[in-house]
Amino acid sequence: MQQVAAEVQQQQVKKKQQETQMCRKIKLTISDHNKNISSHDDDDDDVCDKMDGEDLFIPPLNFAMVDNGIFRSGFPEPSNFSFLQTLGLRSIIYLCPEPYPEANMEFLKSNGIKLYHFGIEGHKEPFVNIPEDTIREALKVLLDVRNHPVIIHCKRGKHRTGCLVGCYRKLQKWCLSSVFDEYQRFAAAKARVSDQSAEFW
Amino acid sequence: MQQVAAEVQQQQVKKKQQETQMCRKIKLTISDHNKNISSHDDDDDDVCDKMDGEDLFIPPLNFAMVDNGIFRSGFPEPSNFSFLQTLGLRSIIYLCPEPYPEANMEFLKSNGIKLYHFGIEGHKEPFVNIPEDTIREALKVLLDVRNHPVIIHCKRGKHRTGCLVGCYRKLQKWCLSSVFDEYQRFAAAKARVSDQSAEFW
Repeated sequence: MQQVAAEVQQQQVKKKQQETQMCRKIKLTISDHNKNISSHDDDDDDVCDKMDGEDLFIPPLNFAMVDNGIFRSGFPEPSNFSFLQTLGLRSIIYLCPEPYPEANMEFLKSNGIKLYHFGIEGHKEPFVNIPEDTIREALKVLLDVRNHPVIIHCKRGKHRTGCLVGCYRKLQKWCLSSVFDEYQRFAAAKARVSDQSAEFW
Repeated sequence: MQQVAAEVQQQQVKKKQQETQMCRKIKLTISDHNKNISSHDDDDDDVCDKMDGEDLFIPPLNFAMVDNGIFRSGFPEPSNFSFLQTLGLRSIIYLCPEPYPEANMEFLKSNGIKLYHFGIEGHKEPFVNIPEDTIREALKVLLDVRNHPVIIHCKRGKHRTGCLVGCYRKLQKWCLSSVFDEYQRFAAAKARVSDQSAEFW
């Protein structure tokens, strides 16, 4: 058992080192790119400060682009609102039975975003107890381009959202193994490794 | 050991059952949707035949949309070509040192797609030994909208592709934890569970 614990710890240290290295590489590349395209004489520190500063965007958990004008994610928190504003959303498809929080309702109101609420109970198993008529109604909203740009979300952006996206992919005539691969990519996603505020690398 | 083997087997059976269930649900929803929107009087069987037929699209391994006009994936096989045609690509950013296969070159030629080839050696570790100047050049191509729609790919669409997408996200001012989450989602993706031809569910 001690050996296993030591190995896990070693792996964690290695992962952290990799992330630090990845971050350095991104920063180097970005700051260099900015130097190349910028007409100002900002030095690297300035660029990094801007990149690390408060004006960074925080996409919601499990955020991804599904297609032109269609996005998916986990439950948006107030910290995600400034990012969501960049998407110019017309509507949100929300797939949990719980009422939408006050803060989120305010965000929708002030940004003219329409809420389509389909209450589906959460289950860890894919497509178990997902009511067909509800998914069908949600699919109709999703396919109506007058609602685009639209973001689909449930709680973690895994099963309920993945089910609706799976139906959409099938309509796009994706083969089932590709539909499953995409479903699994999100369903298997780990909880966020680090707190959002941990931008210290 | 026997108990572990039995548990693994049980899990596999359960997973298979879930996939079958998920598939049935997708089919039900889709065929119902098609009935609703179609002006023809196709019955369910016809719809399912079309869905299960040869005209299904097979996106490349690890395919996803990164942004408007930007896609990512693993190495495209000839079976993916008809899907890729639907994207109306103007260019491909290819990140492996190996020469592009003849069949892929032919596909590019006949579809007027430009190839940008940046030879980066493959490493399982994220951002280890990825040459900065090469990534910078690839980023320039990626950011030039005259090259859009563009697809970035390496071999499996994990590390080299993930590195370039990570740089792009940083330019979009995504916070690092979100950049890492996205990187991990693709890097952790399992090999395709089933053969592409296994469309029998």
